Amino acid sequence: MNIRFTLPLLCALLCQYTSLSAQLQWREVMPGVWKGTAGTPEKVTLLNIAAAKPDSAALGKLPSARFPLDRNDISVKLADGKVYLRFPLEKNEQLFGLGLNFKTVNQRGRVSQLHVDHYGGKDDGRTHAPVPLYISSRGYGVLVDAARYITVYAGTAVRTDTKNPPVLHDRNGNKQWESQPYSDAVEMLVPAAGAEVYIFAGPTAMNAVQRYNLFNGGGYLPPKWGLGFTQRVPTLYSQQDIVREAKEFEGHNFPLDFIGVEPGWHSMAYPCTFEWDPNRFPDPKGFIINLANMGVKANLWLNPYVSPKSSLYAPLKSLSGSHTVWNGLVADFTLPEAKALFREHFLKNHIALGVSGYKMDENDGYDKWLWPDVATFPSGTSAEQMRQIYGIAMQQMTDEWFREQNRRTYGLVRASNAGASRFPYVIYNDYYSHPDFITALVNSSFIGVLWTPEVRASKSAEEWVRRMQSVCFSPMAMLNAWADGTKPWSFPEVETAVQEVAMLRMQLLPYLYSTFAQYRFEGKPPFRSMNLIDGFAFTPQVNGGKLDATLNPYEAKTRSELKDQYMMGDNMIVAPFFAGDSSRKVYLPKGKWYDFYTGELAGEDGVITVKARLDRIPLFIRDGGLIPMIPPRRQAPKPGEVLPLEVRVYGSAPGDFLLYDDDGNTFDFERGQFTRVLLKAANGKGSMEKPAAGKPFGYGPKVKWTFMTAQAK
Amino acid sequence: MNIRFTLPLLCALLCQYTSLSAQLQWREVMPGVWKGTAGTPEKVTLLNIAAAKPDSAALGKLPSARFPLDRNDISVKLADGKVYLRFPLEKNEQLFGLGLNFKTVNQRGRVSQLHVDHYGGKDDGRTHAPVPLYISSRGYGVLVDAARYITVYAGTAVRTDTKNPPVLHDRNGNKQWESQPYSDAVEMLVPAAGAEVYIFAGPTAMNAVQRYNLFNGGGYLPPKWGLGFTQRVPTLYSQQDIVREAKEFEGHNFPLDFIGVEPGWHSMAYPCTFEWDPNRFPDPKGFIINLANMGVKANLWLNPYVSPKSSLYAPLKSLSGSHTVWNGLVADFTLPEAKALFREHFLKNHIALGVSGYKMDENDGYDKWLWPDVATFPSGTSAEQMRQIYGIAMQQMTDEWFREQNRRTYGLVRASNAGASRFPYVIYNDYYSHPDFITALVNSSFIGVLWTPEVRASKSAEEWVRRMQSVCFSPMAMLNAWADGTKPWSFPEVETAVQEVAMLRMQLLPYLYSTFAQYRFEGKPPFRSMNLIDGFAFTPQVNGGKLDATLNPYEAKTRSELKDQYMMGDNMIVAPFFAGDSSRKVYLPKGKWYDFYTGELAGEDGVITVKARLDRIPLFIRDGGLIPMIPPRRQAPKPGEVLPLEVRVYGSAPGDFLLYDDDGNTFDFERGQFTRVLLKAANGKGSMEKPAAGKPFGYGPKVKWTFMTAQAK
Repeated sequence: MNIRFTLPLLCALLCQYTSLSAQLQWREVMPGVWKGTAGTPEKVTLLNIAAAKPDSAALGKLPSARFPLDRNDISVKLADGKVYLRFPLEKNEQLFGLGLNFKTVNQRGRVSQLHVDHYGGKDDGRTHAPVPLYISSRGYGVLVDAARYITVYAGTAVRTDTKNPPVLHDRNGNKQWESQPYSDAVEMLVPAAGAEVYIFAGPTAMNAVQRYNLFNGGGYLPPKWGLGFTQRVPTLYSQQDIVREAKEFEGHNFPLDFIGVEPGWHSMAYPCTFEWDPNRFPDPKGFIINLANMGVKANLWLNPYVSPKSSLYAPLKSLSGSHTVWNGLVADFTLPEAKALFREHFLKNHIALGVSGYKMDENDGYDKWLWPDVATFPSGTSAEQMRQIYGIAMQQMTDEWFREQNRRTYGLVRASNAGASRFPYVIYNDYYSHPDFITALVNSSFIGVLWTPEVRASKSAEEWVRRMQSVCFSPMAMLNAWADGTKPWSFPEVETAVQEVAMLRMQLLPYLYSTFAQYRFEGKPPFRSMNLIDGFAFTPQVNGGKLDATLNPYEAKTRSELKDQYMMGDNMIVAPFFAGDSSRKVYLPKGKWYDFYTGELAGEDGVITVKARLDRIPLFIRDGGLIPMIPPRRQAPKPGEVLPLEVRVYGSAPGDFLLYDDDGNTFDFERGQFTRVLLKAANGKGSMEKPAAGKPFGYGPKVKWTFMTAQAK
Repeated sequence: MNIRFTLPLLCALLCQYTSLSAQLQWREVMPGVWKGTAGTPEKVTLLNIAAAKPDSAALGKLPSARFPLDRNDISVKLADGKVYLRFPLEKNEQLFGLGLNFKTVNQRGRVSQLHVDHYGGKDDGRTHAPVPLYISSRGYGVLVDAARYITVYAGTAVRTDTKNPPVLHDRNGNKQWESQPYSDAVEMLVPAAGAEVYIFAGPTAMNAVQRYNLFNGGGYLPPKWGLGFTQRVPTLYSQQDIVREAKEFEGHNFPLDFIGVEPGWHSMAYPCTFEWDPNRFPDPKGFIINLANMGVKANLWLNPYVSPKSSLYAPLKSLSGSHTVWNGLVADFTLPEAKALFREHFLKNHIALGVSGYKMDENDGYDKWLWPDVATFPSGTSAEQMRQIYGIAMQQMTDEWFREQNRRTYGLVRASNAGASRFPYVIYNDYYSHPDFITALVNSSFIGVLWTPEVRASKSAEEWVRRMQSVCFSPMAMLNAWADGTKPWSFPEVETAVQEVAMLRMQLLPYLYSTFAQYRFEGKPPFRSMNLIDGFAFTPQVNGGKLDATLNPYEAKTRSELKDQYMMGDNMIVAPFFAGDSSRKVYLPKGKWYDFYTGELAGEDGVITVKARLDRIPLFIRDGGLIPMIPPRRQAPKPGEVLPLEVRVYGSAPGDFLLYDDDGNTFDFERGQFTRVLLKAANGKGSMEKPAAGKPFGYGPKVKWTFMTAQAK
């Protein structure tokens, strides 16, 4: 036995095992952001790995706000080697966030153990991005920065000595009895010697989200091509197959900005070599150039597990964990030496050739496929911590490589966590429920991540067009044909409808890119839950539990949720249809809302019912909403291109829109190389501010103003 | 801050945080039972709470055995405040146990986090009895005695430096690739400063189970009435309603030995007062006497949560946890003072009146219903520990009350764990899949618990009779009508078939009681997985994973399992039918097997197909198998009754059977007041040993020998 200890360590140990109750001391570390430290926090935390610098200037521009809770109502205790946290809740408060959930939006009344995992069909905290952050409908957020499996009781735990006890009912004959009595607190158990806790003030829920994102450096602004269409090809496609695939897209006049190259590019994959297969890819450089000549970029699939056949294996062996995944090494990405080996290899073999980015698969995974919690790592980071951070560590590392090149990347990742908003990655998974994919898109907006409801296959043309429609209104418009070999035109009866919605996404690029600029500079998520929207109110209906000895012995109540519509940017509600729907309800925030396609009044303040049309995804624009658009095109504009701008104007209220543009490819915008002009419309007239000269701006001076709504007489 | 520490504590703390690898030191604590201590074990462990005394005499009678593993292949490490354990596996070894699973029997290749919980439909370690014990097909068992959420990698984790690495396959085109590469170890993570580990030797898997059960004091021998039929009545039934119900059973000539009184007997339930409701039960004593006059006993439902309306509330408040469940106190049952308060109240108000036992509900429960892991308890026991032990603490406590009275009880419990075999409780739950209920019955045999596939309701007469048939071949023949008000005769078209199978159970009491005596004295579970049977072999079929991007992206393989048949005692295979089945397969161990009803040869060494008959549950008896029976009757024999014995003999091989009897009600058998006589049959002749005089023996000297199988010429 070799025992070394220092005084601080000793103190940490003791604090951990002696039950201590205390108040957190709060320090305002950024405008409207407070930090409190419980016990002795660990070195490896989510935010430490994400390594973000807060955007203090942008934070300073948000409305000023006071500490949003009563400090006396927050308690912390150290016992059993863990941190016990308690935060107050008010009677009608709703809670959002707590990871990328697929079935629920409102988290109050739920228990989660936050755990990076494949989503397994249940909202229980095991998901691709189990971010330990909740956003309250009262306009604040709480983040626990610990890379541990945190258990969260979101308004379920009831203390014996609570000030707001639930009403006592006798289940013997009293119908008021509830299986989940009222709880006035969020309680969390952090299995660590300490944790840092952050409170993000509002005053609105959107402001709290913005503060969270800006505290982590703001959102990511993708390159323009990243917002175009992407197709992922079958696993074993060769470079010729892929070039042929890109040509087919030309032939079908279907948008295509980048292609996803699946495992077959590796000389061995599962585990991976990260080296080009000489048979399928005899000339990687020529392959990338061929694609580039068609305006198409290449994104490479990988999972992190290093094959014994890889040149990286030998040098990485001592820098990797005690256990393998699929026979591959699990590199310890908390070690700079391990990261340096990857950097050198990836820059030289992929990025220098023009590879545009990566799809980083399986940095999450079901327990039976991932490294076990009994694994150890050379840095001393525990397997549990490694699991919670692996996705963000890979995002941080790869993001840095591209920033070094002054090239923006945009890719895919399956595991994420807190601190990820500034990273160039969109989350996806293997699950495939279309409605649940939309709920994930809704939930992504609370926790600083992006999500794509990717399309892979469908049972019918109807399902196909419905899925294609919603993926075109998401952060990444992707068809992932790795296993099925599907093409956008795989269902000929809906080929036109699919092409039209993909083209519509391309037309909306000015709107979408400006929306992502908001994410970057203001921290507003591009795709937003209705719960973050001013003037929106949805009161969940509680459906009383009917006793059924088999199906509902506890007479548990259910609560309706709004989880199938969202906003893209400030002005547009997206309300997807799912296969089989003939009509659907759409909940409108305060004010008048207009049909995107016709400009007609769709409704005002409340619920409307929309009839299904196979060729359209329902879109609604707010009164005074401006939607800047460009003509249909297959690919995102290149730097220097100047395009005609059409601005559609909806309703009769005066409105404006901040149009953003830059070179679309580099980080020069961070050094001032961008343009932001105000578009204004009122009384049937529109105007655009004159852009400053010498900065990138891709639109001609003559704007076509289209007033979509017949003006009131 | 108030920090106290002692040198041993300091040492424990340091050991915990310094990564230490070591070998476990093994000490043979009982014949064939070795104990190893990792780190500093906690005071509150599963076996400490169960407080069993090993039956050293019975252990000594098992075949002698050596330490079943290579000590060098077992490793233990202390790191991150946890215990890391590793045990070797051989290539074709199968693993059983690891909690009361409902869908799987073979646990190799699975990951579980053992956690007392309502079963939620997935075998993931969250179940009513998450016993940290596995039984190997190689004939040994491993138990980790820690009241913590233990994570078990049962042949899934693969070490980089393993001596038996999996074969490396390239998923790019190689069909041999496997989503779960071969692993040669069980690894476990115990989130505690230490743990005690026990190894139970064989040489057979059954011997390992026996050693485990005997180490915990042997199995429980129920009172005879406990093996009769039981009906649980609707929640709000009054004492008159219940007496009427018992009379109806007489009218229908349907067996009934005890009645389950559901929540309505409490003056308030959910949370509970444990006090009789004066309106529904104005005369509890008279009520119990009325039932007793019909030969029927009363079992009282409860959950442990103490209502503010209970006289127990005030004295228990300071002896309870920080959080309530359903507004009720959660008593700290690791405190003798809390147990004493319950004892006094329960003895005086129930047991003294003649109450025969309890149904202890909801000492498990979904996270959202139970106390949270952030709860604290006055003893210092953590919420996690309390959750793992609550069921066994309640079993231990109540068992003691009845032993004090020299009265055997037999009841129900929903939470259990290691060390429970000697307790008078059968596990049940709210789940209701008939096939999965049978799988649970199979699995109960590995982990020292009893399970009943209770009947509540059915969608059809066919389902009704199928469920009634299998519950009559289980540890407790129960209809639980708390919510549905069903009666055994609820489906008139199958009333006779249901009555017949209930009567058949009564006829089989001599066989069943002797089988439970085996459980008590030899540790052999009364209901047994085929995997524990000598001469049985079932090789799981592996079905190769077909790639499907949506349903099976990892081409995961599935493995067939034998999980729908079991043995009752030494001689009888039970192979239930489920609604909808027209035929089924039955796997026979080595030798010839005979139809119970006809005595005809059913098959030999292998699979047979049996056609469904609505009025019969398939039962098969081994060659030379003796089945002692009594005439059909409604209630179990009372002490002093003398019954005619019929012994059915199957096949042509000579056979014998050890018939056990005692007074059926008290613990006098533990002081020698029992009879055990050998029944023998060969060549068409049978004989019974003469029982010693002066000891209880409920059968007349003249045995009717029925040779069921036509003897070979």
